[in-house]
Amino acid sequence: MFKINDNYLKLPGSYLFSTIGKKVNAYAAAHPDKRIIRLGIGDVTQPLVPAVISALHGAVDEMGDAATFRGYAPDLGYDFLRNAIADNDYKARGCDISPDEIFISDGAKCDSGNIQEIFSLDNRIAVCDPVYPVYVDTNVMAGRTGTYDPQGETWSNVIYMPCTAENDFTPELPRETPDIIYLCFPNNPTGSAITKGQLQEWVDYANKVGAVIIYDAAYEAYISREEVPHSIYECQGARTCAIELRSFSKKAGFTGVRLGFTVIPRELKAGEVSLHSLWARRHGTKYNGAPYIVQRAGEAVYSQEGKVQLEQQIAYYMRNAAYIYQGLKDAGYTVSGGVDAPYIWLKAPKGMSSWEFFDYLLENANVVGTPGSGFGPSGETYFRLTAFGSYENTVEAVDRIKAL
Amino acid sequence: MFKINDNYLKLPGSYLFSTIGKKVNAYAAAHPDKRIIRLGIGDVTQPLVPAVISALHGAVDEMGDAATFRGYAPDLGYDFLRNAIADNDYKARGCDISPDEIFISDGAKCDSGNIQEIFSLDNRIAVCDPVYPVYVDTNVMAGRTGTYDPQGETWSNVIYMPCTAENDFTPELPRETPDIIYLCFPNNPTGSAITKGQLQEWVDYANKVGAVIIYDAAYEAYISREEVPHSIYECQGARTCAIELRSFSKKAGFTGVRLGFTVIPRELKAGEVSLHSLWARRHGTKYNGAPYIVQRAGEAVYSQEGKVQLEQQIAYYMRNAAYIYQGLKDAGYTVSGGVDAPYIWLKAPKGMSSWEFFDYLLENANVVGTPGSGFGPSGETYFRLTAFGSYENTVEAVDRIKAL
Repeated sequence: MFKINDNYLKLPGSYLFSTIGKKVNAYAAAHPDKRIIRLGIGDVTQPLVPAVISALHGAVDEMGDAATFRGYAPDLGYDFLRNAIADNDYKARGCDISPDEIFISDGAKCDSGNIQEIFSLDNRIAVCDPVYPVYVDTNVMAGRTGTYDPQGETWSNVIYMPCTAENDFTPELPRETPDIIYLCFPNNPTGSAITKGQLQEWVDYANKVGAVIIYDAAYEAYISREEVPHSIYECQGARTCAIELRSFSKKAGFTGVRLGFTVIPRELKAGEVSLHSLWARRHGTKYNGAPYIVQRAGEAVYSQEGKVQLEQQIAYYMRNAAYIYQGLKDAGYTVSGGVDAPYIWLKAPKGMSSWEFFDYLLENANVVGTPGSGFGPSGETYFRLTAFGSYENTVEAVDRIKAL
Repeated sequence: MFKINDNYLKLPGSYLFSTIGKKVNAYAAAHPDKRIIRLGIGDVTQPLVPAVISALHGAVDEMGDAATFRGYAPDLGYDFLRNAIADNDYKARGCDISPDEIFISDGAKCDSGNIQEIFSLDNRIAVCDPVYPVYVDTNVMAGRTGTYDPQGETWSNVIYMPCTAENDFTPELPRETPDIIYLCFPNNPTGSAITKGQLQEWVDYANKVGAVIIYDAAYEAYISREEVPHSIYECQGARTCAIELRSFSKKAGFTGVRLGFTVIPRELKAGEVSLHSLWARRHGTKYNGAPYIVQRAGEAVYSQEGKVQLEQQIAYYMRNAAYIYQGLKDAGYTVSGGVDAPYIWLKAPKGMSSWEFFDYLLENANVVGTPGSGFGPSGETYFRLTAFGSYENTVEAVDRIKAL
């Protein structure tokens, strides 16, 4: 008789976005005259830029002609894309990463969920709190997290690193020693960034204790300050302790196109075994490459034309971020993020909980955001707004909040 | 100190296609005047059909316009594609499968590798021998297969079901009782098919012993005989014991486009827990949906135009299959497959091993195929040729073999 993976049953329901959906739908049904503005979910709204569209059309035409048709892609990605990434994201920033250390995939969510597979079950993970839920949930599904405490909303075998106003939303080195450390900067959900000096401390720590850092840099394209590193490989010694995850979703609006990559330097080893070889084996066995047309779209992101167009797209979103940040600040809110990231993190006013503020905003301003408590216990009393809406909607939402 | 997943180290090297590549390259280098014809790897060569190309261009245009741009796809797939599949692949064949039992993915290889995750580690798997290597390798990586015997090339905790000329390449019910049974029909590598009556016996058996069948139907589009089922759900009782995997790779030449799906009926349960809910949770946590443009391409496969064009494409490949089959038979070879599948399975002549015949064919006919022993011990002395080449190359390859 077959038996299921019981670890799945330990997962608490993932009700955050479905609860938001239900509340919004109920409000909309009761108030059909109100125009609701959604600044909640982290999905983009601007179309793909012309350089990408043109590359997609070109690649589609190639697929329709026997002379240029492409079947199975190389498991680890086409050289044209791996080379473009190595040159533009690494070499241009002084990072020593070669094309064959870059693994093309269908997105950072998949990679951030799958990467734990190449590690033993008896590793202890450390995560920021609040945190993107995929890191913890995929470790729960593998059976690495111990038992769940529904009161504290924590797992017994996970080290939580609170990110609060007190530490400027940047975690302190943990007191207990982890084996695997998940870091995401610029951060989802808090919108905070880490300086190169601060990140260097983490790299030094990981090398000292023999931990591996899984560094999620999905939002690096939104960095504006000079002192904030775009890659962990800007730090000395990262090649022996860090895996980096990257995404085209926010960098180029590829949320519905699906493209990302993971970097594993060859020096990152447990004894004689390189994590590079394990991840290559995983890719070769359980994955079949990103679509050719999508990889050509990714290549176009690094073209001269594509770069200019995407700079404008990111500037568009960051104008929203600045408007939200300043507007809320003017209205007396405690606000952070929004400078190196498309997320604004604010403190709910008047002692409200995250969900109380959600209801308050929905009912009084018809604006939808995301309760910070949905990302972890230290997110309680916080609230996330995203810069991914249209400029017009963003301005109207902020003006409504200011008028409350 | 982080620790790796040691199960990965148990995997024997996957040298089949790299060894083939090395031998072919060495021969080509030594004989630059010879024209080598490759009928080895199972990749398609015909371009995408016009209906698919047109759908891709249309969807690309939508992605370039803010009014029609699509961000994150629904995790489990767009309704337009799930509905088309339910109608055409299931309802039209009298199978009771609803759209919400269909999970869209980026291909059957990924699904066939990932599906084992929702099962406990203490399940015992049964596989055909010879077999597509992904089923076993992914169970090795999870730690479900026991120890490897390099002599017999088998795992201690895997039940092997030999498929040989004696049983017409269709396995007999295993003597030991498995928990999870992998079946692939039409079969890769043998090209054999299973009749509805035979498959019904497997469904009855699985229901009796409480096993789940993972039914890989990636090659169903190549079925020509009436008595061969396209779906396991054509059998009575399959809804309580079977998961079906499907692919667009061979049905529509999508090897480089990446699209597939998995069907899990809601009645398939362990106690109160439905496998449907576990797989939905996995998709939601570790996957982010297939690209919108690719799902539109999938929809076009089911359009009137697409169906006609793809029928011609499959007929093109099956003409190759028939030419190989008949040509080798005329030349005195023992041949099977090629009627309901794009693979021809032949017995190496004169007592040669699979690899001896590989070398013989490469050197004397300059034709590349795949040694059957690469798919498992029962594949020894067999050899696989594929129908996915061009007609001209296929004819020339067969004529060269006949002339030996």
